[in-house]
Amino acid sequence: MTTDQLYAQILKKQSVLCVGLDVDYEKLPEKIKFECRRGDMALMGKLFSGKARAVMAFNKAIIDATAPYCISYKPNLAFYEQLGIEGMKALEGTVDYIRAHYPDMFIIADAKRGDIGNTARMYAKTFFETMDFDAVTLSPYMGTETVLPFLEYPGKFAIVVALSSNPSSKDFQNADCEGHPLYEDVIKKMMAISTPENMMFVVGATKAEKLTDIRKICPDNFLLVPGVGAQGGSAEEVIKYGANAKGGLLINSSRGVIYASTGDDFANAAGIAASNTARYGL
Amino acid sequence: MTTDQLYAQILKKQSVLCVGLDVDYEKLPEKIKFECRRGDMALMGKLFSGKARAVMAFNKAIIDATAPYCISYKPNLAFYEQLGIEGMKALEGTVDYIRAHYPDMFIIADAKRGDIGNTARMYAKTFFETMDFDAVTLSPYMGTETVLPFLEYPGKFAIVVALSSNPSSKDFQNADCEGHPLYEDVIKKMMAISTPENMMFVVGATKAEKLTDIRKICPDNFLLVPGVGAQGGSAEEVIKYGANAKGGLLINSSRGVIYASTGDDFANAAGIAASNTARYGL
Repeated sequence: MTTDQLYAQILKKQSVLCVGLDVDYEKLPEKIKFECRRGDMALMGKLFSGKARAVMAFNKAIIDATAPYCISYKPNLAFYEQLGIEGMKALEGTVDYIRAHYPDMFIIADAKRGDIGNTARMYAKTFFETMDFDAVTLSPYMGTETVLPFLEYPGKFAIVVALSSNPSSKDFQNADCEGHPLYEDVIKKMMAISTPENMMFVVGATKAEKLTDIRKICPDNFLLVPGVGAQGGSAEEVIKYGANAKGGLLINSSRGVIYASTGDDFANAAGIAASNTARYGL
Repeated sequence: MTTDQLYAQILKKQSVLCVGLDVDYEKLPEKIKFECRRGDMALMGKLFSGKARAVMAFNKAIIDATAPYCISYKPNLAFYEQLGIEGMKALEGTVDYIRAHYPDMFIIADAKRGDIGNTARMYAKTFFETMDFDAVTLSPYMGTETVLPFLEYPGKFAIVVALSSNPSSKDFQNADCEGHPLYEDVIKKMMAISTPENMMFVVGATKAEKLTDIRKICPDNFLLVPGVGAQGGSAEEVIKYGANAKGGLLINSSRGVIYASTGDDFANAAGIAASNTARYGL
């Protein structure tokens, strides 16, 4: 997908929302858990059993309810990996389901990978060939080399963590490096090896006022912005300070959308939450 | 495993070698690929098919040949993930095989994970509960909070990347932060939330001369040292500058051991390479 195609989706849906699929079996509605105890679930030719079946059923319902109001989905790998092989089946099944039913969606693997060149090449293959993601989040600590293999896939994106939304992000990201914070160095060095057509940056919503300065450094890159909702950030402020001529934003909400209700009405509630989050250009 | 138990293994085997299982199907000996085309392989109650079968067969042979000469194995997650579900079966099968046949081995998940608190908790569960690793490598960029959940498992270790062995490690790890390099800050802040019984650090062998300074900062922590062999580092220099009273080192070699020969004698060659790498206290 190109940034122009992504912008077309933003205009069509009047939204910059990315729904984070941080799906924890323990937090699923009782209705889903109960129904999924009763039998296997076949989907896209794959058979799911156990907890993965419940996660898949939940994701299907959430995706169907929220798809009109978002432009992107972002499964968080940790939540699937913790279920072992079954979890990886649920992850692949989720990506397959989105591709089959909502082919214009931008699908992000939230994986925060980052390793030396030959390992990075394997991770790029994992997310862009073995699985069918459009983008993958990466951690920059081991340097620019760790990102290069991800840039070689036309229409795919590396999304490098610059400034995250968690309290301890200040520990190293804000380190004073010769008068400027480290995260600025990260953005500049990553920009030097990439273009806005293969590189985005993670910038936390809890630092919305910093978006003005960051936009001066990287005016044309899309920014993936977590931290709205459960973590306290404001989507309106992010759009105010962070938008560019193509929208330029993917504002993520995970818990605020997918757990909007824990009752039988969970899917409907997620749809309503999505329709009220990160509206753009109305 | 405690550091005393690890030291007992170092003394028993007179080795600080960790064998990196960065196993790429494309690089496997033709003999293994050919034999594995002929049928399924059952191991530890699991059935393997396709490329994963070849990877498992290779790993079994490598492990049996090198186990007398090493104290640790370190599967690199990227190489298994790129094979999809089958790769994850090979990974779990490899860990199960080591546990069943070589119960004193220290098994490291080389995963370089690093994410906010609730996600980090899921990754800790993945590697320490769903799978049976003793340790997992972590990337520090998102701060100390991202490491905390891994410290809550007695006898398990977080291994935080401080100074890696790749050329672009200098991009950010060596950033001049008020007169000292960033990686020193990483070590100090991680030490403040941990003990040598739950925290180790990655320090690349290609920077062996820096080990003296790093040892002053963290005298008691084990160091996982990659970069020996294919990346050019010297195990003798690492031991000279980096050892402490408990050995304190896990010197990793991946390609230098597992691909010592690509012929039918690959396992024997790996055993010989292992017996000649990172010998300690002879």
